[in-house]
Amino acid sequence: MKAMNVGLLGIGTVGGGTFTVLQRNAEEIARRAGRPIHITVVADRNLELAQKVTGGTCRLTDDAFAVVNDPNIDIVIELIGGYGVAKELVLAAIANGKHVVTANKALLATHGNEIFQAAQDKGVMVAFEAAVAGGIPIIKAVREGLAANRIQWIAGIINGTTNFILSEMRDKGLAFADVLKEAQRLGYAEADPTFDVEGVDAAHKITLLASLAFGMPVQFDKAHIEGISKLQATDIRYAEQLGYRIKLLGITKRTDNGVELRVHPTLIPAKRLIANVEGAMNAVLVQADAVGSTLYYGKGAGAEPTASAVVADLVDITRIHTADPTHRVPHLAFQPDQLVNLPMLSMDEVVTSYYLRLRVQDKSGVLAEITRILADANISIEAVIQKEPEAEAADLVLLTHQAREKDINAALARIEDLPVIDGAVVKLRMESLG
Amino acid sequence: MKAMNVGLLGIGTVGGGTFTVLQRNAEEIARRAGRPIHITVVADRNLELAQKVTGGTCRLTDDAFAVVNDPNIDIVIELIGGYGVAKELVLAAIANGKHVVTANKALLATHGNEIFQAAQDKGVMVAFEAAVAGGIPIIKAVREGLAANRIQWIAGIINGTTNFILSEMRDKGLAFADVLKEAQRLGYAEADPTFDVEGVDAAHKITLLASLAFGMPVQFDKAHIEGISKLQATDIRYAEQLGYRIKLLGITKRTDNGVELRVHPTLIPAKRLIANVEGAMNAVLVQADAVGSTLYYGKGAGAEPTASAVVADLVDITRIHTADPTHRVPHLAFQPDQLVNLPMLSMDEVVTSYYLRLRVQDKSGVLAEITRILADANISIEAVIQKEPEAEAADLVLLTHQAREKDINAALARIEDLPVIDGAVVKLRMESLG
Repeated sequence: MKAMNVGLLGIGTVGGGTFTVLQRNAEEIARRAGRPIHITVVADRNLELAQKVTGGTCRLTDDAFAVVNDPNIDIVIELIGGYGVAKELVLAAIANGKHVVTANKALLATHGNEIFQAAQDKGVMVAFEAAVAGGIPIIKAVREGLAANRIQWIAGIINGTTNFILSEMRDKGLAFADVLKEAQRLGYAEADPTFDVEGVDAAHKITLLASLAFGMPVQFDKAHIEGISKLQATDIRYAEQLGYRIKLLGITKRTDNGVELRVHPTLIPAKRLIANVEGAMNAVLVQADAVGSTLYYGKGAGAEPTASAVVADLVDITRIHTADPTHRVPHLAFQPDQLVNLPMLSMDEVVTSYYLRLRVQDKSGVLAEITRILADANISIEAVIQKEPEAEAADLVLLTHQAREKDINAALARIEDLPVIDGAVVKLRMESLG
Repeated sequence: MKAMNVGLLGIGTVGGGTFTVLQRNAEEIARRAGRPIHITVVADRNLELAQKVTGGTCRLTDDAFAVVNDPNIDIVIELIGGYGVAKELVLAAIANGKHVVTANKALLATHGNEIFQAAQDKGVMVAFEAAVAGGIPIIKAVREGLAANRIQWIAGIINGTTNFILSEMRDKGLAFADVLKEAQRLGYAEADPTFDVEGVDAAHKITLLASLAFGMPVQFDKAHIEGISKLQATDIRYAEQLGYRIKLLGITKRTDNGVELRVHPTLIPAKRLIANVEGAMNAVLVQADAVGSTLYYGKGAGAEPTASAVVADLVDITRIHTADPTHRVPHLAFQPDQLVNLPMLSMDEVVTSYYLRLRVQDKSGVLAEITRILADANISIEAVIQKEPEAEAADLVLLTHQAREKDINAALARIEDLPVIDGAVVKLRMESLG
């Protein structure tokens, strides 16, 4: 059967991996897809690198627009990244009637609605399995595998860099800054790690999962985002003593008052399977009404794991491109005319439980004062650790039952005003994931 | 859009769950599938039960053949089980041009080649997500999500009954027979538990996964099957001391000499995520060349978890039934003309490592004699536990490095002949799953 002709934009880490996997497993992939899938042209600014990776097996160009305008190309793989030229190229490819495969979560989380609409109008597919959790087929699981369910929430370790850093901080008792340097040396963190460590990358990914789960347009601007750069080793240690691990989770939850969409360091019970996902690995936990909890685990980044997802999308498109567009899997799991603009819950309204660490002076009645303020705000306490004082002050750690974020914040403002409290209170959120 | 009309054969546990889920989530399912999916007729011998479950919302019959011959039915769900009438009904539905959804692993593992060929000839789909690991979308993951990969091996906890029993034996130090009784009382084990506890059910499932992974016809008759009914609490305890858990795994592996297909109790390192899958939960670990390890975890049985998979198949078929048959996902992941009759490895030729427990008399030189016999067979020892003797005999536990099954068996025959050895040697296999 006629081969599918693919144009690859960007031959960096994932692009190189995609090229390698398609070449190495060409025979098995063709046996699955029913026809060969060939990368016939590669566009990259670095033609020398492109020549080295491809070994002269396909055409090379430094003009990505020539690829999206090439009438012989059936599918365009966009691996350039960012919101600028990548967006122009994806829209141009769609306008030219080409299917698109992309790993670009930043682009889809911010401009996905426009891009999916354009694809819909043109009857082409935009596939993005590689955009969330690398090689784990989580988009497919949520969009197709769980199609019977009313999904209740998703919680995911969906950024390998931060999970590696948190694992190292816990294992070695080191501070964030020291582990970050080590992660950069090992290639687990980029030179500018902001998008990863501040939670932006995870927020892009959970934004996409939220839309797939609940049938709503992407709305990254509504996400509450906190990273791990301010997290202290002390709190990882106290959490451990209390039977919890701290993970950077992307969380989205359907509540009666709106959809929660948030990324922040989170205490989770150490006995949960997802609490034991270590190093750069990713895992996504999905709670749904019929199936209950399911978990998906694997490598969330790297050349070949991400290529695995890119090539799976190529196979999907190859298998299904002749079907009439109305019978394909919809981009956001629900039929485009069935997406609902669900209200999003502001962080102030989110209800969860909390880990609080206070530095209290060694005076009588301090605990009573603090617990009275919390009780006034209807916040009840589940556990307390009070450490022996050193130098006239001591750490006091409290775990609360469920409370509303704005009530906690108001109570903490009052507590921080007490003369017996030194400095700011450390507040972390807890999820039972039960 | 016109609804899909579904005929349901069998309104037992899973049938009832399917009915409930389709009804409760009708709106969300239609928003995903693009049209309503209606169960319009239910066939069951127990019409009273059928009436109770369906509440008079659809036609009832005690004649399943009337359903598969009904020209108004688009999809038949077969939830009768077994190889007898279920096979006749599935083949009749196919012959009548209907798509089929089934949870019947026994049928597909033994007659799948005939059934898939019939479906292929007729241009209809036979979907079976519910046949393996209940609600975990593992068929979809292997068949589509990992399509880029050369899959190396799959190891799965794919029988909830046995995993529940093993978890209880470990937690409570109880014997198999006692826990089985408890499992029957709680509904985790059937009155006749043979298929579950002797590993037959797991073998059906790993047979299907092996075909999907490696692109070969189903060949259940080649599976090596051992269950857990002879497993002793003593060995679970020793394994624990050595840092291992014992799980009933279905394993399939591609080697240079042939494909391994086996089910048996297996020691796995306690630190592996899959070693921590407890109770009736299922998990499947897949090792593939591009993505590395991925793991899929969830409920492997029960009314609604299994219904989740059945309904996902209904949605898939609804989305794709208008596509030309050559562009659908092939039943066994590879195009039918691309299936290869790979050689299967006999258990004698399997290479793995072993846990051995011997009852040895308290005499000098015993360990030397045993290790000499093993050394003669080129079997090297990784770890030894020798217990203090009680009543003139002691337990000796050995972990070996990798060896061929027939070499181990030959060495064990020699060891069992030694006058200082009491009774048979307990032999369990170990997998690092690294």
